[in-house]
Amino acid sequence: MTDQPLPEFEFDRAIAVRRAAEAGGGPGSTTWAFDVDPGFTVGPKPNGGYLLAVAARAAGEALALDGSAHRDPLAATAHYLRAPDPGPATVVTEVLRTGRSASQVRATMHQDGQPCVDVVLTVGTLAEPEATEPERWSRVPPVALPPLDECFRLPASREGSPFVVPIMDRVDLLADPACLGFALGQPSGAGELRGWLQFADGRPIDPLALLVFLDVFPPASFDIARSGWVPTLSLTAYLRARPAPGPLRAVQRVQVLADDRLDEVCELWDATGRLVGQATQLAAIRIDEGVEIVPPPPIAQPS
Amino acid sequence: MTDQPLPEFEFDRAIAVRRAAEAGGGPGSTTWAFDVDPGFTVGPKPNGGYLLAVAARAAGEALALDGSAHRDPLAATAHYLRAPDPGPATVVTEVLRTGRSASQVRATMHQDGQPCVDVVLTVGTLAEPEATEPERWSRVPPVALPPLDECFRLPASREGSPFVVPIMDRVDLLADPACLGFALGQPSGAGELRGWLQFADGRPIDPLALLVFLDVFPPASFDIARSGWVPTLSLTAYLRARPAPGPLRAVQRVQVLADDRLDEVCELWDATGRLVGQATQLAAIRIDEGVEIVPPPPIAQPS
Repeated sequence: MTDQPLPEFEFDRAIAVRRAAEAGGGPGSTTWAFDVDPGFTVGPKPNGGYLLAVAARAAGEALALDGSAHRDPLAATAHYLRAPDPGPATVVTEVLRTGRSASQVRATMHQDGQPCVDVVLTVGTLAEPEATEPERWSRVPPVALPPLDECFRLPASREGSPFVVPIMDRVDLLADPACLGFALGQPSGAGELRGWLQFADGRPIDPLALLVFLDVFPPASFDIARSGWVPTLSLTAYLRARPAPGPLRAVQRVQVLADDRLDEVCELWDATGRLVGQATQLAAIRIDEGVEIVPPPPIAQPS
Repeated sequence: MTDQPLPEFEFDRAIAVRRAAEAGGGPGSTTWAFDVDPGFTVGPKPNGGYLLAVAARAAGEALALDGSAHRDPLAATAHYLRAPDPGPATVVTEVLRTGRSASQVRATMHQDGQPCVDVVLTVGTLAEPEATEPERWSRVPPVALPPLDECFRLPASREGSPFVVPIMDRVDLLADPACLGFALGQPSGAGELRGWLQFADGRPIDPLALLVFLDVFPPASFDIARSGWVPTLSLTAYLRARPAPGPLRAVQRVQVLADDRLDEVCELWDATGRLVGQATQLAAIRIDEGVEIVPPPPIAQPS
C-alpha cells in the first residue's frame, strides 16, 4: 500500500491493512498488518466497532485475493478476548468459502502474539442506494428525533468524566437532549439513547463505517443506572443496505439487564428512512451496591 | 465414550461427541467426531440450532481438557457455509482464551473434508435457577400465551406439506392457534409465531437445549408471505439463565424483510417468567413474484 496515495479521510487511514510477510494461521490464511488507531478509541482502548471494521476490511482484501467480488459484510460477529492497545497489530484472514451470493471469512486479530478479537463474517454485495428496493415488510420504523440543530453533540471530554473518548472527535453523535438526563445524574429508566450520526470530517458513510456506527453510542444502560464501563463480550452486526448520503438516525436500547450482563440493540436508518444496519451485543456490567436501577416507564413495555 | 452408559434421552445421544484420532486444524486444536442425527432435521437437513448445540458440546469438552470449568454458552454465533447431511462429521475446536469469568472457543464443523458451519462461543457458567437473581431491568416481558391444552402441537408431517420435519417429533412446539392462519393460507401480517416448547421425551431443558429451541420455530415470515424454505446465514444466541423446570414460553418475530433477506428474533422464558435465551438470525428468502406480502397490523408498530 506504500505506493498508494494517502487516503483523504481519517477513517480510511485508520482501517488500512497491508499484506504482511509473516506466515499466517495455516493453509489458506493471509496475514495483514495494521495499526490500531489512537483516534478511534474510548479511553485508552479501541472502539469495538472500529476493530470489526478493520476485520471486515481485511476480509474484503482476502476475498479479492481469491478472485471474489464480495466486499460488504452482510453479517459479522466479533468475540472480544482482550482489548489491544493503539499501535501495530495483525489480522489473520481465512476464507472459509466463496459462494455466488455470499462468502464467509474468519478474521482473527493479534497483538504481541496474543489473540485479541475473533471475527466471522458473511460477506456479499449490498446494492447502491438508487438500485435498492424499498423494504418489503418492517416492524422497526425509523426512530423519531428532533432536528439536527436541536440535538446535543456528545463531546470527547467532559468535566468530571474519568476519561476521554477520542472517537467522539471523529464521529459526530448528535443526541436527542431528551435522553441525556443520565449526564446530570438523572437516568430516565427508558434504557434508550437516540441521535444522529455522521463523520466529523464529512466522509461518506459506507458499509464499513456502519460497523463503527453500530457500536459508537455510550452504553444505553447509562439511562438506567450509573456503572463503570460496560465491556462488550460479543457484537453481531447485520448490514441491510448501502446508506443514501446524509446523517443516519440511530437508536441504542437495553433489552434485559440480569446478573452482571446486559444485551443491547442498535438500529441505524439512512436519510430515506431505510434500515441500513442492526446490531446486538452482550456486555458485562458491574453496578455498585446501593446504586439505584431506574425501572422502565410503562410505555417502554410492548404489549 | 464407548464405556459410558448410553444417554437416557435422544437429545443427549444426538449431541454426543467423541475425541477423534485425526489431526486437528493447528496447534491447540482438538478434533471431535459426531454423527449428524437424522432425527433433529428439517426435511433432509439438520436444524441449525441442533448443530450449534453440538458445537457448544464440543467447546465444553475442549475447555474441560484445558482445565476450565466453563460449560455454558453465554454468547454463540454460527455462520452456515453448507448444510451437512445426517451421518459422520467432525468438529475441530480451538480454545482461544480461558478466562476467570468467561472463555472463548472456536468450533468448525466439517463433513467430507468441507467446512459446513463456523461457530465462535463465549462460554461461562450460568447460575442454577434457585441461585439466580431476579432480572434487574427488562423491556421484554414474557409473551402471553393460551394455556398448553388450548395450543396446537405442530406435527412433523402435514398433508400437502412438501417435506417432513422430524425435529417436530423430538421437540413439542405447542403453538398459539391465533398465529397459525398461515397454515390455512391466511398469514396475519404480524410476522410473529408464539408457543410453548419442551422435549417430547421429557428431557430437562438445559443450556444446550436452549440453543436448539432458539431455532426450532418455522420461519416467522410464513405469517407474512408464502415462500420456500428460509435458510439461515448466521445465527447468534445469548443464554441468560439456566431455566427452571417446565415448558418454555417462546416467540419468533420477523423484524425487517428487504431485498432477499430478513432478520428474525427469538426469545425464550422459563416457567418463572425469566428470559433464559435470545437469538437473532439473518436468513435468505425468496418470495415468488405475485405472492402477496401482508403488511403489519398497526398494533405491531412500536411508537
